[in-house]
Amino acid sequence: MIKKVDHIAVVVPDLDAALKFWVEAFGLALERVESVPREGVDVAFLPVGDSEIELLQPTDPQSGVARYLEKRGPGLHHLCFAVDDIDATLARLKAAEIPLINETAVTSNDGKKYAFVHPKGTGGVLVELYELPFPC
Amino acid sequence: MIKKVDHIAVVVPDLDAALKFWVEAFGLALERVESVPREGVDVAFLPVGDSEIELLQPTDPQSGVARYLEKRGPGLHHLCFAVDDIDATLARLKAAEIPLINETAVTSNDGKKYAFVHPKGTGGVLVELYELPFPC
Repeated sequence: MIKKVDHIAVVVPDLDAALKFWVEAFGLALERVESVPREGVDVAFLPVGDSEIELLQPTDPQSGVARYLEKRGPGLHHLCFAVDDIDATLARLKAAEIPLINETAVTSNDGKKYAFVHPKGTGGVLVELYELPFPC
Repeated sequence: MIKKVDHIAVVVPDLDAALKFWVEAFGLALERVESVPREGVDVAFLPVGDSEIELLQPTDPQSGVARYLEKRGPGLHHLCFAVDDIDATLARLKAAEIPLINETAVTSNDGKKYAFVHPKGTGGVLVELYELPFPC
């Protein structure tokens, strides 16, 4: 079951410059900035409604996000949906022969389970799934 | 005041093929499909949480969405935020010298007020603003 849009990720060359639009001009609140070395990005989290905008600045030129920025320029990067059962969702997508970047869910350092669906299977959108930590 | 992500728009070459992923495989509900000749698109509305995914299929090869599809391929197109006062939001963006596609809000046939912010001003994201019909 898909519960909500968890976040929309935007790739930016420079977080400070991006925050000038999203926070100073547009008026979103900056919750925190976090380094995620495993993904080669610094991330700014901007909650809005029951979703978040995540601004991704590449910190490693070999990262997928850095290569995306070089190829496509700054802008919308991926869309993450919160689900109540990520294993069941991945099984459903596999049964429909949708190509997955992560065949099984990845567990992050803080215990979150997530997986990416390949844009080839979604019509061009990089889709992330994130399992909500509590049944809801 | 920005209340929530109203919708995320995805440009697709063919609605029926796109619905095979978003509805049949992924499990979102299809609320309705609507023709919007003024924008040169057919739109499928897929509610999720308190937002929606909108799939846009160009019906007019001269439309902005058709040109985007030709240039960038299918995928994420724009991000729409619901605001409680669109005139105040546009005034705030103008004061910050953010370039706007619509200097004043457009009113659609069904009375909705909306406006687009130019991607040059947002760091590459086409942002739509939509005024909620009731104060909240």
